[in-house]
Amino acid sequence: MNTPHTSQSLLLDHAESLQPLPSTTSVEEVERRAHVASVESIDFDFYESEQGLAVTATKRKRIVQAVAKWIAIAIIGVATGSVASGIDYGIVRLTEMRFGLMRTLVRHGLSSTLLVLANMAICTSLAGIAGALVCFVSPLAAGSGIPEVKCRLNGLDLPLVVKPQTLLAKACGVLFSVSAGLPCGKEGPMIHSGSIIGALLSKALQLYELLLFPDRDERDLIAAGGAAGVSSAFGAPVGGVLFALEEGASFWSPQVLLQALFCSSVSALTLNFFLGGFDSLGFGTLGALGVLTFGSYFQSDATSYRIWELPFFFGVGILGGLVGATFNALNVPLTIWRQWCVGAGGTRRFFEVMTVTAVISTAFVFLPAVMRQCVVPDVISDQHGDLKLICDASSESRQNSIESALGLFMTPSEDAIKVLFHDPAAFHPLYLALFAALYFFMACWTYGLGVPSGLFVPSLLTGAALGRLLGEGLQAVCSRGQGGPGLHVSSPGVYALVGAAASLGGMARITISLAVILVEATGNTQFSIPIIFAVLTSKAVGDCFNRGIYDIHIHLKKLPFLEAPTEVECHKQLVSSVMTQDVRTVFPVESVARLKDLLGRNSHGAFPVVDSSSSFRFQGMLSRSALQSALQAQVGLESFQGRVLQGSNDGMHCDQMIELKSWISPAAFSISNTATVRRSFDLFRTMGLRHLPVVDSTGTLCGIVTRKDLAEHCTHD
Amino acid sequence: MNTPHTSQSLLLDHAESLQPLPSTTSVEEVERRAHVASVESIDFDFYESEQGLAVTATKRKRIVQAVAKWIAIAIIGVATGSVASGIDYGIVRLTEMRFGLMRTLVRHGLSSTLLVLANMAICTSLAGIAGALVCFVSPLAAGSGIPEVKCRLNGLDLPLVVKPQTLLAKACGVLFSVSAGLPCGKEGPMIHSGSIIGALLSKALQLYELLLFPDRDERDLIAAGGAAGVSSAFGAPVGGVLFALEEGASFWSPQVLLQALFCSSVSALTLNFFLGGFDSLGFGTLGALGVLTFGSYFQSDATSYRIWELPFFFGVGILGGLVGATFNALNVPLTIWRQWCVGAGGTRRFFEVMTVTAVISTAFVFLPAVMRQCVVPDVISDQHGDLKLICDASSESRQNSIESALGLFMTPSEDAIKVLFHDPAAFHPLYLALFAALYFFMACWTYGLGVPSGLFVPSLLTGAALGRLLGEGLQAVCSRGQGGPGLHVSSPGVYALVGAAASLGGMARITISLAVILVEATGNTQFSIPIIFAVLTSKAVGDCFNRGIYDIHIHLKKLPFLEAPTEVECHKQLVSSVMTQDVRTVFPVESVARLKDLLGRNSHGAFPVVDSSSSFRFQGMLSRSALQSALQAQVGLESFQGRVLQGSNDGMHCDQMIELKSWISPAAFSISNTATVRRSFDLFRTMGLRHLPVVDSTGTLCGIVTRKDLAEHCTHD
Repeated sequence: MNTPHTSQSLLLDHAESLQPLPSTTSVEEVERRAHVASVESIDFDFYESEQGLAVTATKRKRIVQAVAKWIAIAIIGVATGSVASGIDYGIVRLTEMRFGLMRTLVRHGLSSTLLVLANMAICTSLAGIAGALVCFVSPLAAGSGIPEVKCRLNGLDLPLVVKPQTLLAKACGVLFSVSAGLPCGKEGPMIHSGSIIGALLSKALQLYELLLFPDRDERDLIAAGGAAGVSSAFGAPVGGVLFALEEGASFWSPQVLLQALFCSSVSALTLNFFLGGFDSLGFGTLGALGVLTFGSYFQSDATSYRIWELPFFFGVGILGGLVGATFNALNVPLTIWRQWCVGAGGTRRFFEVMTVTAVISTAFVFLPAVMRQCVVPDVISDQHGDLKLICDASSESRQNSIESALGLFMTPSEDAIKVLFHDPAAFHPLYLALFAALYFFMACWTYGLGVPSGLFVPSLLTGAALGRLLGEGLQAVCSRGQGGPGLHVSSPGVYALVGAAASLGGMARITISLAVILVEATGNTQFSIPIIFAVLTSKAVGDCFNRGIYDIHIHLKKLPFLEAPTEVECHKQLVSSVMTQDVRTVFPVESVARLKDLLGRNSHGAFPVVDSSSSFRFQGMLSRSALQSALQAQVGLESFQGRVLQGSNDGMHCDQMIELKSWISPAAFSISNTATVRRSFDLFRTMGLRHLPVVDSTGTLCGIVTRKDLAEHCTHD
Repeated sequence: MNTPHTSQSLLLDHAESLQPLPSTTSVEEVERRAHVASVESIDFDFYESEQGLAVTATKRKRIVQAVAKWIAIAIIGVATGSVASGIDYGIVRLTEMRFGLMRTLVRHGLSSTLLVLANMAICTSLAGIAGALVCFVSPLAAGSGIPEVKCRLNGLDLPLVVKPQTLLAKACGVLFSVSAGLPCGKEGPMIHSGSIIGALLSKALQLYELLLFPDRDERDLIAAGGAAGVSSAFGAPVGGVLFALEEGASFWSPQVLLQALFCSSVSALTLNFFLGGFDSLGFGTLGALGVLTFGSYFQSDATSYRIWELPFFFGVGILGGLVGATFNALNVPLTIWRQWCVGAGGTRRFFEVMTVTAVISTAFVFLPAVMRQCVVPDVISDQHGDLKLICDASSESRQNSIESALGLFMTPSEDAIKVLFHDPAAFHPLYLALFAALYFFMACWTYGLGVPSGLFVPSLLTGAALGRLLGEGLQAVCSRGQGGPGLHVSSPGVYALVGAAASLGGMARITISLAVILVEATGNTQFSIPIIFAVLTSKAVGDCFNRGIYDIHIHLKKLPFLEAPTEVECHKQLVSSVMTQDVRTVFPVESVARLKDLLGRNSHGAFPVVDSSSSFRFQGMLSRSALQSALQAQVGLESFQGRVLQGSNDGMHCDQMIELKSWISPAAFSISNTATVRRSFDLFRTMGLRHLPVVDSTGTLCGIVTRKDLAEHCTHD
């Protein structure tokens, strides 16, 4: 057992020093630690000082606050739904324009080479706008934004994640990245947009002091906004809530569940309203459109399956897990390379966007042309043809299974998923496999590029293609006249559905929310069991190899994220071996000079209070803001916001002693120095703490545990 | 601020005494306290003594344990699905027999009076079997069982709740209570059955030492079983998980979510398999049957609604909230009366079952006969006719809207819901309203009767009837030739669906799980938004009047249940005002005589350890079982299981001192005596504790907080 630390080992006003690094520490490790140290975290614990409790709101004020919160949630839902509708509508219009322009060029008789170049120019221009928004306006708008939102909900203070400029870059950028034909989806960015809207509304409420617990309430509103984002991305209100629960699941209560559900329903309703309006149905008709993003299975397909097909669904799940793990594994070196050689923003990153778009857009035109042994103009004329076909949901005019498969190359991703789910015509296996492989690698290359890009659609499409391939193979084997066993086999579209679920489950390692999203997006509950089995299988298979793509990106960004604890992790190590002993403490009565110095010389969010320098007994925590209020109330110093203090009558008060007792939260959680790391991790994460003082059995403060200490010792590698 | 208690105020080996009761204490209060004191709770915290950590399993053992747990979960799913299939099948067969017998009697020309008597006799006989199982075999099998499961998951140790005889009484009893025609459902009992199966499997694993954390793992398996129960009751795997999450939501992790999802999918699959087999489809066809308990909306009904209908859906939600609150309010005095005058089991309770069944079965035959102005034989011939009609899903042969409405009286409840959801023919409003009212009161009378009886189906049916009423009214107004505004209005079946959701939401106050269950049970996602709005509205309206029916029953049973905290509850009261000061403490070195005495004279689950009688510093917790192991290891006393000790060589060791240090969990959570009740409640509930020692800033033990102390001070009244 570790010997308890005596009070002498705690240094007051100790010079800024890093703890000695172990001898194996590399340059990257030093850099990583410095980075980790720069990220602040958020305290979700109650702060219960006498002063704080004294100003607790009246009952009337509390009712006003509760009403305001629900109104804010409704507004978040409407706003997120409107943004999502705008993104939906904009993508359709821009994609139509892109194909319209190409068709015009074909009509004017341009040569193949010129057409390929024109296509490349159009795509890179579109992607260029998205790239410019990311690289020069808000680098945090890149990617899906889900890892960032996840970190914010976990308690990491990343202010830029929820700023208006990020919303602008994200929501506008995704219009262009998707309509440029890049293999990426609009869903992640919609989720991030919803979360930002949630954070903005929370800031607005804070302005009018309408939040009871600002940090907790802001977290709840961000989660509700995220749920609304998923909801409007897929027309899946329940799926949205579950996604927020599963991915941002650090802190939940029945109240938060209700709020997220309400927010995501309002958002789905708003989307329904607008999509009904854009369509021929007219504004006011709800329920029929917008909800079934991936088309319903009830119109044409079979609605039952046989028990002997279950092993195949498991097989699809295993395949999905392998595909997902491969995707994640390939994405790691790519992301590291990007971090080292491209950077988070600027010209280099912009140049990468242009290059990648040029290559991808050319490949997707060129490959079908070569394989079909025809000229580019034919392909391009077909493109729009295909697009129209899909919109009309009739596929008779396509000539054969090769054309069907090659048509996928130029179809917008979301429509391609619909085709794979529902098209009764067969796809040529070789070309379908080729499409799946090409799309997989292109999607992997795109994820992490400097444009807003969601992972859901590319992952679902890859999985759908592979599932469809397997389904068509099965059907061919089973229905083969005399040779086959003559068994009933579900339509290949069902395998595509299961495959899509498995593939996304393998990449993102989400389960129940994914199953519900797919059920809601296809309006179909009959296949929920195969979907659930496939998702559980693919997660289990994927977890054997690596972590989910979001966790990988959080890890690569070197953020001190607190994962859900596994039961047997670090169960023997004592907390005293991970705590920081270099603590800045405060006495209940302190001189103004010392306090000013303390505020000025570091950015700690709170300071442990000890009774005297001899016994060093822990008396509670004093938060930075409470300390500022105390100084303001007792001395009248105006601004303690920054590190540099600007006292109006500075010299006058420096020797004055002030009484801090009533500003101290006297019962802040602490932990015994004989506790294991597991126990302190549990307490820290569950209660959403920012710092956890460690005391010995006599009440003496031994050190303090922060998020960084725990994140370093409790990662699952 | 409260003055810290000195060590003198803590009494060692203090005579058993109740704390002084406040002067206002009534007889009931004394009784309630005595009852609360008799319920033990479960400790879900890690126990981390040196001895415990030393025997931590090897990696191989841990893998075996993990695999065993997943296998157990699959078995729970299969078993729950099989039990549910058996219940389903049994109810259909018994109901057919009941109607067959009555038809035979009609054919033999019995008079109306004799037929009414015969019907009464058959129904009471069936209900009598159910009643006998409850009153004489297992009183805990009464009702839905959901409050009991909820308490078990919350950490209340109610051993009988999860015993095999309860399963037997519940699963067999529900067959007879439902087929007796009582207004009750099979869903609650299925959920309880699933939970018991979960607990039994957990016991089996514990026998072979295959559970890493027995108490935690048992809780997880019970939750998974409950999810499987909902899943097989409604064919709603996701709804099952959400129900377990929403109702038993005290402790959750991603791992538990996955396990519950797997268990409920396996269970739904099993149900699918058997129901497909019982049906003409034959074994092996899945997905088409059993899942859609309440029939699909895709076959015949409209799949869209208009925006101006939203206020009506809200209206249905408000109505549902009022209906639910009324139901709960009426059920309270009835339950209290039952507790005082009927008791939990025995002949009196059995007699009540017979009486209530006789009245209800007569009313449901007699009323249609009187209202139709026809004779009883007609009604009874019709009964079976109606049953057949519903099974064939064609309603043309019924003559008019009055017949349709009166037919509901004699239709089994679950089928009646289907009819109200989907029947295109109109129901006569007056008779429909009468049916709703009668059914409502009968259901309220039945809930709490001494038979296994679920609340879901009666509540859904009442709401469906009211919703249908409103829907038909709206349609009549809107489609009235010249007079009406000529607006499109959704089919009355949609209003019935929304009404069903609102009514159950108003009684049980569940939201997201209910919405998902209805979506899964009707195979329809189009109306999820109206359902969600109605459910949220009805919960909000109901919460203005009283609590959910399950919480009411927990409260009436006087169980120390820890509800989810509301944010501003008891925020200023200090923990020192609720803690118990009468603590039985242990020193690190103790005499065998003292320890034997300690074990013998009370049933505490753990004892705080203090360093010495002078300083009284808290050193950790010593659990009862660890103390028994310590005695066994060091002295060789064989049995310390009961309160009475049987030492093999008793006198020999009594003066011996033994060293307890390595059996103590040194870092058990404790809380400062300056903490608020809110803070200690948060820590206690979130960490699943059984006792929380209170210490002052010098580490001196001041008292201990148990579940009972907190439950008394933190109820929401």
